[in-house]
Amino acid sequence: MLGNFSYHNATKLYFGDDSLRFLNDELPKYGKTVQLIYGGGSVKKNGIYDAVINILNANGKTVVEDAGVMPNPTADKLREGVKLARDNKVDLLLAVGGGSCCDYAKAVSVSVNCDEDPWDKYFLRFEEPDCEIIPVGCVLTMAGTGSEMNAGSVITNHDQHLKIGHVFGDEVMPKFSILNPRFTLTLPKRQMVSGIYDIFNHICEQYFSGEDDNTSDYLAEGLMKSLIHSSLIAVADPQNYEARSNIMWTATWALNTLIAMGKETDWMVHMIGQAVGAITDATHGMTLAAVSLPYYRSIMRCGLKKFVRFAKEVWQVCPDGKTDEEVAAEGLAAMEQWMRTIGVAMNLRELGVTEDMLEAIADATILLDGGYKQLTREDVVTILKESL
Amino acid sequence: MLGNFSYHNATKLYFGDDSLRFLNDELPKYGKTVQLIYGGGSVKKNGIYDAVINILNANGKTVVEDAGVMPNPTADKLREGVKLARDNKVDLLLAVGGGSCCDYAKAVSVSVNCDEDPWDKYFLRFEEPDCEIIPVGCVLTMAGTGSEMNAGSVITNHDQHLKIGHVFGDEVMPKFSILNPRFTLTLPKRQMVSGIYDIFNHICEQYFSGEDDNTSDYLAEGLMKSLIHSSLIAVADPQNYEARSNIMWTATWALNTLIAMGKETDWMVHMIGQAVGAITDATHGMTLAAVSLPYYRSIMRCGLKKFVRFAKEVWQVCPDGKTDEEVAAEGLAAMEQWMRTIGVAMNLRELGVTEDMLEAIADATILLDGGYKQLTREDVVTILKESL
Repeated sequence: MLGNFSYHNATKLYFGDDSLRFLNDELPKYGKTVQLIYGGGSVKKNGIYDAVINILNANGKTVVEDAGVMPNPTADKLREGVKLARDNKVDLLLAVGGGSCCDYAKAVSVSVNCDEDPWDKYFLRFEEPDCEIIPVGCVLTMAGTGSEMNAGSVITNHDQHLKIGHVFGDEVMPKFSILNPRFTLTLPKRQMVSGIYDIFNHICEQYFSGEDDNTSDYLAEGLMKSLIHSSLIAVADPQNYEARSNIMWTATWALNTLIAMGKETDWMVHMIGQAVGAITDATHGMTLAAVSLPYYRSIMRCGLKKFVRFAKEVWQVCPDGKTDEEVAAEGLAAMEQWMRTIGVAMNLRELGVTEDMLEAIADATILLDGGYKQLTREDVVTILKESL
Repeated sequence: MLGNFSYHNATKLYFGDDSLRFLNDELPKYGKTVQLIYGGGSVKKNGIYDAVINILNANGKTVVEDAGVMPNPTADKLREGVKLARDNKVDLLLAVGGGSCCDYAKAVSVSVNCDEDPWDKYFLRFEEPDCEIIPVGCVLTMAGTGSEMNAGSVITNHDQHLKIGHVFGDEVMPKFSILNPRFTLTLPKRQMVSGIYDIFNHICEQYFSGEDDNTSDYLAEGLMKSLIHSSLIAVADPQNYEARSNIMWTATWALNTLIAMGKETDWMVHMIGQAVGAITDATHGMTLAAVSLPYYRSIMRCGLKKFVRFAKEVWQVCPDGKTDEEVAAEGLAAMEQWMRTIGVAMNLRELGVTEDMLEAIADATILLDGGYKQLTREDVVTILKESL
C-alpha cells in the first residue's frame, strides 16, 4: 500500500549546457555577501571558478572564499566554515562542486545561527535546526549524490571514526541548483563511475524494501534502466553529452525524496559504506559498490519477491523454468556484470581495507531497520568479510 | 539529447487517508477570507464539504461560497468567480473537487487583479498574468488531470465553441494540495475510468515525441506500467485503496512537468479531444479515449522507433520474427485491449457525436507541432471520421 506522506521540494533547477547564466537571475534575490564554497581547485583549472566569479562580480557581490572542501567534508572543516560565515555575516552560501560541497554548504547553513557544536547537535544527536537558516545555492560539477535537490548532509569525524548523514527538513534544501552536464565532462573517469554507482545504489536503497507494486517502485525501475543505458554509453565515451546529461538528471531524481514516497526504505549499504569511508576515507560510491553485492546476496531470500521483480524488470531475466531464487540470483549476477563493465570497486581490498580493520568498521556501522532483514553486528562483520 | 530546461514545482502535497487534517497547518498561512470552490454537490453528499467547512470554521475563516463549477468550467462561470473574489477581497481560493475545480481556481487566481477579460487575455491571447495572483489550495476528490500540482487551466467558451488550455508559469501552481485517495472511492465508475484514461493520455502526449532514450521516457514508462497495473485492479474492485492510491499518485506525476523535461511533447490528442468537448460537453477523458487510437495509428509510421519501444517496454510485445511495423501495431492493439477492458469510450458516437459535427470539431481543433507528424485540418477530419 502507498502509505501516508507529505511531499515538498521547492528547489529551483536550471539544467543544460548554458544554465550557468541563470545565476544572474538568482543572485539578486539574496544579500550582498556570498560565501563561495569549493573543493581542491579543479574548478580553477577547468574555468568554472572564473565563470562563477565573473557573474558574482557583475552582480556586485562581496565574495568570501571558502576553499578546500574535501571529498568527505569533516566536522573540523564545518566549524571553520561556520566561523567564516559568522565573521562575514554572509547572505548566501554558494557551493560550486559535487555533493561534498553541497552537503557541506547545507551543514554550514543550519549552523551559522546555532550556538551549539554542529557535529554534536546535528550528526550525533540528529536534532533539527531551531535557528535561522542561511540560504544555499549550488553549481553542480559532478553527478551522483543528489545533494543538489535534497536536504541531506553527510559529515565525517575522523577523531571519532564516524561518517554520519542527516536528512534535514525541506527548508534546508538548496533554493536553487544549476546543473550543467558539460561541467561534469572534465571529471576523471573513476570519479564519474563512482558517481554512477552512487546513483544506482540510492535507487536500490529505496527500491529493496516493502512488498508492494507501488508507483514509487515503477519510477525507481525507470531510473535504474535509464542509468544502466546511459552509463554504458558514458563509460565507452565519457565525452558523450547525451549520456552525461541523462546521468545527471537521473542522479537528481534518484535522491530527492520522490521514489521513497509512501514506502519503507533500506539504507544499510550506505551505513556500511559510510563506516568504510570513516575508517579509510575511500571514495563514497566505491565504498558502496564494494559492499553491495555481499549485502544483497545476504538478504535476497528475505525479500525474494522484490529481487525476482528486479531481475525481470531491470535486467530482463527470463523466468521460464527457473525457481524464484534462481531468477533473483540471475538478477544480482547481471548487476555484478554491469558493475564490472563500468569499472567500480568490486571488493574492499581495492580501497585499502585489510582484515584487521573489519571490527572497527562494524563498530562504526549504524544498524537501521526498514530492509528485508534486520542486521546484527555479526551480520555486518560477515558481509564485510565477504566484501574483502 | 536531454535539452535545456528549468524545473520548479513548489506545490506542497499531503497524501494519504488522513491528509485532510493538514489543512489546519496550511490555513494559518493565509488571510481571513476563503473562497470555497466546488462542483455540483457530490461533496455535500459524501461528507467532504462538511469536513472542510469544520476545519475552515475552526481556523476562524470567513467562507465565501462558490458552488456549481461544471465539469468543463466556462468563461461565464470564470467571470462570476472573479467578481465574487473581488467583491469579497478573498485571500485564498480553496478548490474542493476534481481537476475542473482546480483549473477554475487557477483561472480565477490570475484574473482577480486583472482589468481585462480573462477569457480574452489568457485563453484567446495566451498572455501571462501581470498582476498579483491570489493563492490557490486544493482538496482533490478525483484523480486524473494532475491540476493539483501544475499551472494548467482549461476553460470552455460555449458561445465560441472553444475549449482552451493555458499552462501558466510556476507561480500559478497551487500552494498546497491535499490528496486523500479515500475521497475518490465514491466516484461513479465511469468517472474513475475517464480519469484513468486522462492520466494515460497525459503520459502518451509527452512520451510520443522525440527519438531519444532519455530519462523522461524511462520515467514515463514507469508511470504507464504502474497505471496499467493499478487500473486493472481498480476496475475489478473500485474500493481497492491500494490501487486507487497508486492511481492518484500516478496522476500527479503524469502531468506536473517532470516527464516533459528536456524533450518535445505532442498534445494533439488533447487538442482534438478538447474540440470534441467544446462541441459536445462530453467528459474530458472519454473524448481523449475516443480519438487516441485513430490518431496514434495515423502517426505510427512517422515515429516508428518510439512505438516499437512502447510495444516492447509497456506491453511486453515480443519482437522476435516481426517487422518494426508489426511490433508497433501489436503495441497499439494491446493498448486497445486494455482500453476495452477498463471500459473507456471507444468511439465518438458513444459521446453523442454525429457525422455532421465533424467539420465544426475540426474547426475548433488547434493544430500544434511537436509530434511525429504535423497535422493538417484534413488530417484531423480523417482522424475524426475514423473515430466515429
